[in-house]
Amino acid sequence: MDITNYMQTIGRQARAASRAMARADSATRNRALLLIAEAIERDAGKLRDANARDMEAAAAAGLAPAMLDRLALSDKAIATMVEGLRQIVALPDPIGEISNMKFRPSGIQVGQMRVPLGVIGIIYEARPNVTVDAAGLCIKSGNAAILRGGSEAIHCNRALAALVAEGLRGASLPEQGVQVVETTDRAAVGALITMPEYVDVIVPRGGKGLIARLMQEATVPMIKHLDGICHVYIDAKADIAKALPIAMNAKTHRYGTCNTMETLLVARAIAPSVLPQLAALYQTREVELRADPEALGILQGYPHLVAAVEEDWRTEYLAPILAVKIVAGIDEAIEHINQYSSKHTEAIVTEDYTDAMRFLREVDSASVMVNASTRFADGFEYGLGAEIGISNDKLHARGPVGLEGLTSLKYIVFGHGEIRN
Amino acid sequence: MDITNYMQTIGRQARAASRAMARADSATRNRALLLIAEAIERDAGKLRDANARDMEAAAAAGLAPAMLDRLALSDKAIATMVEGLRQIVALPDPIGEISNMKFRPSGIQVGQMRVPLGVIGIIYEARPNVTVDAAGLCIKSGNAAILRGGSEAIHCNRALAALVAEGLRGASLPEQGVQVVETTDRAAVGALITMPEYVDVIVPRGGKGLIARLMQEATVPMIKHLDGICHVYIDAKADIAKALPIAMNAKTHRYGTCNTMETLLVARAIAPSVLPQLAALYQTREVELRADPEALGILQGYPHLVAAVEEDWRTEYLAPILAVKIVAGIDEAIEHINQYSSKHTEAIVTEDYTDAMRFLREVDSASVMVNASTRFADGFEYGLGAEIGISNDKLHARGPVGLEGLTSLKYIVFGHGEIRN
Repeated sequence: MDITNYMQTIGRQARAASRAMARADSATRNRALLLIAEAIERDAGKLRDANARDMEAAAAAGLAPAMLDRLALSDKAIATMVEGLRQIVALPDPIGEISNMKFRPSGIQVGQMRVPLGVIGIIYEARPNVTVDAAGLCIKSGNAAILRGGSEAIHCNRALAALVAEGLRGASLPEQGVQVVETTDRAAVGALITMPEYVDVIVPRGGKGLIARLMQEATVPMIKHLDGICHVYIDAKADIAKALPIAMNAKTHRYGTCNTMETLLVARAIAPSVLPQLAALYQTREVELRADPEALGILQGYPHLVAAVEEDWRTEYLAPILAVKIVAGIDEAIEHINQYSSKHTEAIVTEDYTDAMRFLREVDSASVMVNASTRFADGFEYGLGAEIGISNDKLHARGPVGLEGLTSLKYIVFGHGEIRN
Repeated sequence: MDITNYMQTIGRQARAASRAMARADSATRNRALLLIAEAIERDAGKLRDANARDMEAAAAAGLAPAMLDRLALSDKAIATMVEGLRQIVALPDPIGEISNMKFRPSGIQVGQMRVPLGVIGIIYEARPNVTVDAAGLCIKSGNAAILRGGSEAIHCNRALAALVAEGLRGASLPEQGVQVVETTDRAAVGALITMPEYVDVIVPRGGKGLIARLMQEATVPMIKHLDGICHVYIDAKADIAKALPIAMNAKTHRYGTCNTMETLLVARAIAPSVLPQLAALYQTREVELRADPEALGILQGYPHLVAAVEEDWRTEYLAPILAVKIVAGIDEAIEHINQYSSKHTEAIVTEDYTDAMRFLREVDSASVMVNASTRFADGFEYGLGAEIGISNDKLHARGPVGLEGLTSLKYIVFGHGEIRN
């Protein structure tokens, strides 16, 4: 199989289909989504069979248990996919919205219209539910999609692709509006990210290593989801009754998520009173604390205490481990965050108005919070309704990316025969 | 000189300076702009001397007259630069604007804040005025800038860089907030577009060849200004009294601009009446018409008539030449445009509501117009106040790019101690 040729064909078909997807009205796109949901419910048994084949092969290949867990398609996972599609149907249509139409001195009226991006390439791990979520979001936003899931999920993804195609056909939309790459050859990814003539944006989901490689090779723009080295800063003027639950929740609510706190910064003035109380909470979850020299002094006697090294400030643990550093105040906190964070999510706990406002303005991250847990950085919690990823990028879409992130604003002009002088 | 090292130093300095630029309040940034304007007025003589050195060297090197023309810095050009800076001062500050703050069921209040992008790299031709315009827009929007102008303007750009630095210093902003690349080595461009750790976005201005090369090599995202293959479509239901001046203005108002019409599409039903009248107008300006077979028949006898070939539908003439094609109606017009246009600007002339709405919605270009000349696609005409370029990209900024295009929206959360359950 000539992979470049195969991917070029997929790309050309996607570009052609994208016009019909963009033209389709809300009712048509929603109808396709509902038909896909029905087909998935109807064929749940077949999907579980396909998934069983993937699971067997993956287990035989020695896939790690955490990866097997993501690959598994339970009854509950199928029900969640179907429910997810119905939730997307219920969201308002982002396409065609016209805003800011203003008359200009020349007589023309200028504003913007929200339109689909065109063709979206999504590269993701072996998680079959992402196939359906991503297809759903792209259809709703009037885009064509090329989906490249982890090769371990290939049987299940092929089965899902057939159901998505059935739904599109049923709504008189082109089947090629959503295409699943049917080869597990890695060269397919290399082709996908270097055909800007057919693909308008790549949404990569997956490890830091994969994304670093894509960044080197891609000529198609990307909406990247990188790591989350998130900070909570407990200011000298913090309300301890807020600081304790926020610092506890941000670290221990879930260890494996990208909006989990990895480094805690504490103002020198409040550290002797807040740190021992926090340590007592962390001890109940056996959280290891990697502390700078000053914090080590305050925390002596804590059973899971380690001296922090430079590398700790740059590490996303995704585990019950927390780096702890004492800072002089807001300036040093902001300086540390802007140097070490992955620009994902940071929070300050304070009752001081000026410190709160400075933190919001000066911390250069996608989400910046006052007196709330970093765990809220999420499309559902923000009210986007659904999310295709969380962007660490600054251009186009920053933070949780919902339907709007899959659209673009073009200028439109209502004229009355005006010419330029 | 080790160019990579030199550019890395420039990048590191820009990143460091970008924090102070972002933190600075409106008054400080405006003060820097006014000081630069004053310094340029004061040193106009020195600037003209520096420019004279550039002009001499360029003439000796045999630079084309059109390029020499762009390189020249007349008294009028200096006055325009100064006036441009004062206009930028008068624009509202885009930075810090907070929008859409909404309470969520969890109790947090979520919205967005407009912030600078960080460090902007601008690559442009030998036009000294762009140095000042670009510096002005970046300072106003709280960004640090790295400016790489055409090597022929190096003396003048160095002189301008000194005045920009003086203005920044005078406002207590870091001099390195705006840096002009002081080497004419082309390797500097290669380094600039491959240091995402220091540069957040590249704005390339210049020929299609340059930008195609940058697209292959850049790992920093770009806001690209490509060519303008713009169309006017005269619909069967057009008002001829509007169609004639629009088609005349879109082609002949200025030949060398990217928003000039290059292909005229005419609905079959109206072609026999509209084309001969239009030809009479074009004849006054000796516009060459490259017509498809059907239009050739209608236009026979026109003195500057040529049979169009496939290549004509893809050509940006930037000259008194126009491709002309007869189409069956709106469907064929949209199909032709989406296939051949450079996604810059297209206009329909029609009195038909449905055709107008379909054209607006279905034509996939940065600016889409009804009953107006394509020449209006411009930051000033759209009311953006100033423009750093016109983007053919779909992500982030589309069409004329003003101050907002140099900013990003981050999420901000006002909490009251909320944690996630």
